[in-house]
Formats: sequence, C-alpha cells, structure tokens
Amino acid sequence: MVTPIEYAHRNADSFREQLFDLIRIPSISTDSNYASDVRRAAEWVATNLRTIGATAEVLPTARHPVVYGEWLGAGADAKTVLVYGHYDVQPAELRDGWTNPPFEPIIRNGFVFARGSSDDKGQMFIHIKALESFLRSETGKAPVNVKFLIEGEEEIGSPNLTAFVAANKERLKADVCVISDTGMGEIENPSITYALRGLAYMEIHVSGPEKDLHSGWGGPVHNPAQALAHIIAALHDTNGHILVPGFYDDVMALNQEERDILKMTDYSEAELRTMFGVPAAWGEPNFTLVERQTARPTLEINGIYGGYMGEGSKTVLPAKAVAKVSCRLVPFQKPERIYHLVRDYVASITPPSVKSEVRLLNVGDAVLIPRDDPSMQAAIQAYARGWGKEPHFRRSGGSIPIVADFRRELGLPVLLMGYGLETDGAHGPDEHFSLEMFRRGIDTAICFLEEIGKE
Amino acid sequence: MVTPIEYAHRNADSFREQLFDLIRIPSISTDSNYASDVRRAAEWVATNLRTIGATAEVLPTARHPVVYGEWLGAGADAKTVLVYGHYDVQPAELRDGWTNPPFEPIIRNGFVFARGSSDDKGQMFIHIKALESFLRSETGKAPVNVKFLIEGEEEIGSPNLTAFVAANKERLKADVCVISDTGMGEIENPSITYALRGLAYMEIHVSGPEKDLHSGWGGPVHNPAQALAHIIAALHDTNGHILVPGFYDDVMALNQEERDILKMTDYSEAELRTMFGVPAAWGEPNFTLVERQTARPTLEINGIYGGYMGEGSKTVLPAKAVAKVSCRLVPFQKPERIYHLVRDYVASITPPSVKSEVRLLNVGDAVLIPRDDPSMQAAIQAYARGWGKEPHFRRSGGSIPIVADFRRELGLPVLLMGYGLETDGAHGPDEHFSLEMFRRGIDTAICFLEEIGKE
Repeated sequence: MVTPIEYAHRNADSFREQLFDLIRIPSISTDSNYASDVRRAAEWVATNLRTIGATAEVLPTARHPVVYGEWLGAGADAKTVLVYGHYDVQPAELRDGWTNPPFEPIIRNGFVFARGSSDDKGQMFIHIKALESFLRSETGKAPVNVKFLIEGEEEIGSPNLTAFVAANKERLKADVCVISDTGMGEIENPSITYALRGLAYMEIHVSGPEKDLHSGWGGPVHNPAQALAHIIAALHDTNGHILVPGFYDDVMALNQEERDILKMTDYSEAELRTMFGVPAAWGEPNFTLVERQTARPTLEINGIYGGYMGEGSKTVLPAKAVAKVSCRLVPFQKPERIYHLVRDYVASITPPSVKSEVRLLNVGDAVLIPRDDPSMQAAIQAYARGWGKEPHFRRSGGSIPIVADFRRELGLPVLLMGYGLETDGAHGPDEHFSLEMFRRGIDTAICFLEEIGKE
Repeated sequence: MVTPIEYAHRNADSFREQLFDLIRIPSISTDSNYASDVRRAAEWVATNLRTIGATAEVLPTARHPVVYGEWLGAGADAKTVLVYGHYDVQPAELRDGWTNPPFEPIIRNGFVFARGSSDDKGQMFIHIKALESFLRSETGKAPVNVKFLIEGEEEIGSPNLTAFVAANKERLKADVCVISDTGMGEIENPSITYALRGLAYMEIHVSGPEKDLHSGWGGPVHNPAQALAHIIAALHDTNGHILVPGFYDDVMALNQEERDILKMTDYSEAELRTMFGVPAAWGEPNFTLVERQTARPTLEINGIYGGYMGEGSKTVLPAKAVAKVSCRLVPFQKPERIYHLVRDYVASITPPSVKSEVRLLNVGDAVLIPRDDPSMQAAIQAYARGWGKEPHFRRSGGSIPIVADFRRELGLPVLLMGYGLETDGAHGPDEHFSLEMFRRGIDTAICFLEEIGKE
C-alpha cells in the first residue's frame, strides 16, 4: 500500500483533469445570466466529495447554494478541521485581454491559465484531494475529521453566508478552520497570511438630463460624466490620501513589530514596475509599498461608464454616469460606517445641477489573526514537511469576507494557508495557477491534517 | 394642372412613406459594422434623385460616399442653388433608452420617432421633394437650377468632404447654398440660424498596469480610472469655466446687438428643467442660458469607460480608462489649436504613476453668417409665404463642419434654414421629427426656390 503523499503523486494527472472539469464551468456569481452554471459547479463539487468517500449536500441560500460535505470517520475523540473555499469566480471575457478563452484551461510553462484556476477552484480543490489521498491509501482513513464549506458567493461578498453560518453552528463545529484563498510572493518562500483587508463595495450614480442630449446643448446643462469625475477627484488628494471625512478614524496603527514582519514581504518600486508594467508607484509617502497594499485602506474605482463607449465619435451629452467604487479596509474600520461616510460626503459635494446616489453592494470585515495561536505551529510544520520550507508571515491586500464571521460566530481559529502566487492575476485577464504549487499544496494539506492530528 | 405646392400636398403620404424607407436604413457612419448600410443609403438617395428627374452619382471618398445630383433645366442664365445635407446618422440602440426600435419609424402624436428622422434625413429630403414638386407640376420646371451634395460622413466630422469640395469647385459652383440641418424653438416661431459652433473631438486615454489587477493591489498602484477623473476634474472650475490655458484666447466677444438678438431665443431655468428634466441649470454665471449654449465654447464628456461595467461587483483595478471629449467652439477658435492646448495641458497634469494620451478624432470650424447678405431676404420671404410667419435669427449650439468650407472654398453665401425643433432629440434616444414641419418645410423650400429665382 502507498502513503497518502505517494497516492497524491501517482494520481496527479487525474487530479489535474478533474480540476480542469470544474474550471470549465463558468460559475460567475455576480451575473445572473450564469446562475445555472453556478448551480452546476456546486453539484460538481458535491459529486466529487461523494466520489472520494465523504457525504455532501447542496444547500440553498437566497441566491447561490452552499456545498456542505463531511467525513467524520476519525471518530468523536479526534479533532475536526473545517475547510472553507468557494467555487464561484469573477467575471471573465476574452475581450478583457485574455490570451485564451477564460473557461478553457490551457497549460503554458507549468501554469494553467483560466478564470478560477487560482481563485479559488484550484486552491479549494487541494483540500478535497488531500482528504482523498488519506481515504484511498494505506489506512483508508484520515487522522482528523474534515468538514467542507464551499460557497458560491465569495466573489459577491458572501451576502448569505453569515446567516448560513449562524444557522448551522452545530454542524460547522470544528477545532480549526483552514482556508486556501490567498497568495505567497514566490514559490520558494511559502507564507501564512495573518491579515486580510475588509471591503465596502458601492456604486456612485450621477444623473442629469432625462435622456442623452445632443452635445450642442452643452453649456447650460451640466454633464453627468464630468460631474462624476469631479466627485471622484474629490475622494483623494494627489498623495493617495482619502479625503472622505472620518475615513481613517478607526484605522489600526501599525506597530514596529508588524512593520518589521511586513518588511520581509516588501518590494521595491522597480519590482512593482516589473510585476505590473506601471510607470511609477503611487500612494501615501509615509508607508512602504507593501504597507500601502495590505495595512492601509483604499478607495478604488473598479469600473466607470457613461455615454458613448463605441468606436469613433458620438457627440452626446450623457444622461447619466456610474462608478463602481470599492474600499479595502483594515482593522477596525467598519464597512457600513465607511459606506455612510462616503455616501454623506458624495451628497455634500454634489452640485445642484445633477443628482447623485451612492448604493451599497456588499461588505466584509477586515481580519487580523493572532500569530501565536497553537494551530499556527501545525501549519508551520505542514509547510516545513509538505512544501519543503518553513513559511513566513504576510498580510494580504485582498478580502475573504466570511473569515471574521468564522472567528466571531464559531469561535474558531482560522489559518490562511494560501497556495497561489500574489501575481496569479486573480480577477484580471490571464489568471493562472502553478501546477507545481497545486502538487506542493496537496502535499502540504496532507501534512497539515497529520500535524493537527498530532496535537 | 396643379401648382408645385398643391402637388406637394397631394403627395404628402407618398413623400412620408419614401422618407420612412430611407430612415429604415441604419446608416451609422462612425461604426464600421454599418459601412454597407451607409452605402445602401447613398444609393437610395441617388435613385430617388433620378426618379424625380435629376441626375445623380454616388462618388467614392476615402470612407463613405458622397451623393451628387443636379437638375440644370432652368438654363445657364438662371441662378443655381446648392443643397447640402447628409444621409448618415448617429449611433442608436434600443437599450440606449428608445421607446421603439430606432430604425423602425413609428408615428406618435404627429411626430415620427426614429434615428435620423430630424437629423438629417427628414430635413434633407424636404429639398428633394421640393424640386420634385416643380418638375412634376404645372410648368414641369423649377425657376432655378438645383445641385445636391448629400454626404455620408457628417456625423463623424466630414473628414473627406473638404478635399471633395476643393476638388469639385467647378461642379459645385452655385449662387447660394442652403442647408436644413438645424432646429427652431417652436413650430409657430420659425428661425434662420446664423451661427454654428465648431468642434474638436478627442479621446483621453489613461493607462496604468498592463492588465487589470485584483483590487487587493490597491494602494501602491495608481488606479487609471481615478487618474482620469482627476484629469477631467481639472478641465473645469465649478462655474463651468474651462481651465485649459489659452482655451479662451481666440473667442469672439459678444456685442450688444447679438446679445439682444439672442434674447429672443433665450429660455429660463424653469424652461430648461421642463425640457430636459435637469435639476438645475449650470455654467458660466455671466452669460444667459442661450449664450452658454450657442455663443460660448464647451468641453463635454461624450463618453467614459474603464474597468468592470457589468451587473454587480467585480473587484478589479482597471488597466486603463478612456474619455471621449468634444469641444464646441465659437468664432474664431481654431479646432487644431484647441486640440494642442488640451493635449499639452493633459500631459502637464498627468501624474508619473500613469500614462496618458490625447488623440484627435475630428474637427470643424465655427461659422458666423452675415445677417445682411441679400440671399437672406429670399429666405425670409420664403418663410413668410411657405411657413406662414417671418423668421427670427438664432444661433445654434451644434456644428455642421462643412459650412466653413463652403464659404471659404466656394465663396458661397450659406443659408441655414432648419426645419427641425431644437428639442427633436437629435443624437439621443427617441429622436423625432414633426410631420407638420415636414409639410411646412417642403412648402417653404418651394417658396425659397421661387424667391431666389425672382432676385
């Protein structure tokens, strides 16, 4: 008989093909046109869990279903690990700049390119295959019980998961929660993420005339796209400092210990230029680049539109313009309070010649995980054995809205063991995921279940 | 036998059905997907000219063809009128806010609703039907020779017409040029337009990272949509005054005589609110509303786009953002100079963290027509007889790029006898054209040919 890790290595091709099947389902949660694909991806995950010997259910929510699965064969005295992940993905279209169709996975230079490959189908699937490697090898059982909570609304801010978690506290009871939905800087330097930013996602709508006008009416009629630009411009000073009154009130200050930890994942302006092709860095001068990215809040324009967006010229004064705005937040900023501050500030700077409205789309709290939690030791050992190197700590600039709930509602320590790279291109075109990291991730996840079982 | 006006009245239904056939061709000149429709509209106009007894040719240009037609039966001693118009239209899609499909003309309350109904198919067609009314009634001939220059690129700034006019000076020789491509305020108060604004249409492109990034990278990376908003916001002060250095250098000052004339077409803020549903007026406080609209230059955002524009939330830091910007200009502003000023100013305010580029799409000179030209008397008499009331003078906020060329290249007096309403919704959704004004326009155009012939 083979060990779990040997089993995983022997089945690497099959694991990859299964992942590709899941990736081919365009489970875009934000766009209602894809609702049936989202459902199909949930069913696929449940079926895969059943195939490896776990039980699984597809449970409805107000919008997209949650997949809940479990294998409790380790017995009531053994520890229980709750794996959280998501099977939904961000929107993706070839015309956004993809080299290949985003839902047809293709391998180039050891990376699979496809929407969801890294965020989060590939990373989430690692844990299912880790459990399979125990159940199908030597002993036929894992050293701990494993529960899976795989949701379909992470990319829209998990609007229904908080209620689901609150209603299923008993079912979700566990000793530790592990989540792989973050990235490391380089494959040879694994890291454990101990902080996530929160999120407040809004839309600013500015409207003027009831209908688009011939731009020959320009002069006495205020242009809503121009008014929107004035509003957006008033949100930051030229140093990247946000001008919304009260925005920084609750921001947790960085102490020297954290600044020292963050230095280990800092990067230079030259490295930033190389990574993304930007002409220069930007942002608050008193903070390092990684501090700006992970420990300071932001206010970003995710999208803007209004008027004629086609080829060539159309001389039109648009009736309205819209900006999609998201704030990444840090402990202890409250997303709803940030929304109220932005809403009130936008109202206060909107001129009488147009109307504006700020709508809240979704929210999530920032998270700071204690680095001295005992479960951290199991995670560190798992990397040392499974990845081949001890990890360092990092903060992420991204958000996983449900993590705060897990800690608050379930009282669970949460481990963010991300198996992606920060440069995987999540949310953008040509998202990709290293197959080498997929393999090492499964090894590390196997070691983690063993290490947690030893405690 | 019947008089020309009687002929026109008896054939009103047929004239309208013919116009509807032309409107059904979606001759959108700016979008290359419609190139064959543009060509089809040109052929349709040429065929209609031949049917009434004129000659007609479809002449190629670098992009969309020009229709040239003539009826010279009045003889070498008679005067010659050159009619200019255009058969191309602005883009239109149902989802822009149209009540009915934009290329399926429908009559509601005496107006035909369809793209191009007013601008300019309906107004241009008036002159073809006026000539037909002479050729098919009593004498079988018109009192003057009539030439038609009907182009297919007006809505994209007539990029090839200047060269065409310069190369065809002999063919286009005439005593006066008449153009119906403007509006009046109310049907019972006809007007002659004596000034048009010029145009400089540009695009501002701002780019940052090579590809869209996960917005978790926000902080050290400058958001191009936000940078574009800052650039746009820096183009105006809050009073609507344009901040581009040198922008107003060549603006012709308004004298008291013109201000008095413009008072006749001025409107109140309450009227502006009712016309367009705007919450309040906007713009330079030292000028009346109609002065802001017709005698002052503007800088408008015609369209803006970047990042995610779909339903719901996508947390992305966009790679680029674009604004389509057009300046309406007044005598003696030079469009190319304005482009250079805007380009240099945008370059000077672009921060080093993004790249920007300003591209020129098309240009047109402003026009001011002497109100004391002898041909004006024929036009005034034509309205008095054909429309039923003497017209007053007005300035238009819009542009007809080729008018300046006609005056410069052909030395022709140009008469802007617009048969639309200023509120016809040209360039916007639910464009419409009054059938009553279509009828009165044909009567007036018939009277105009008679009045010019008397001179």
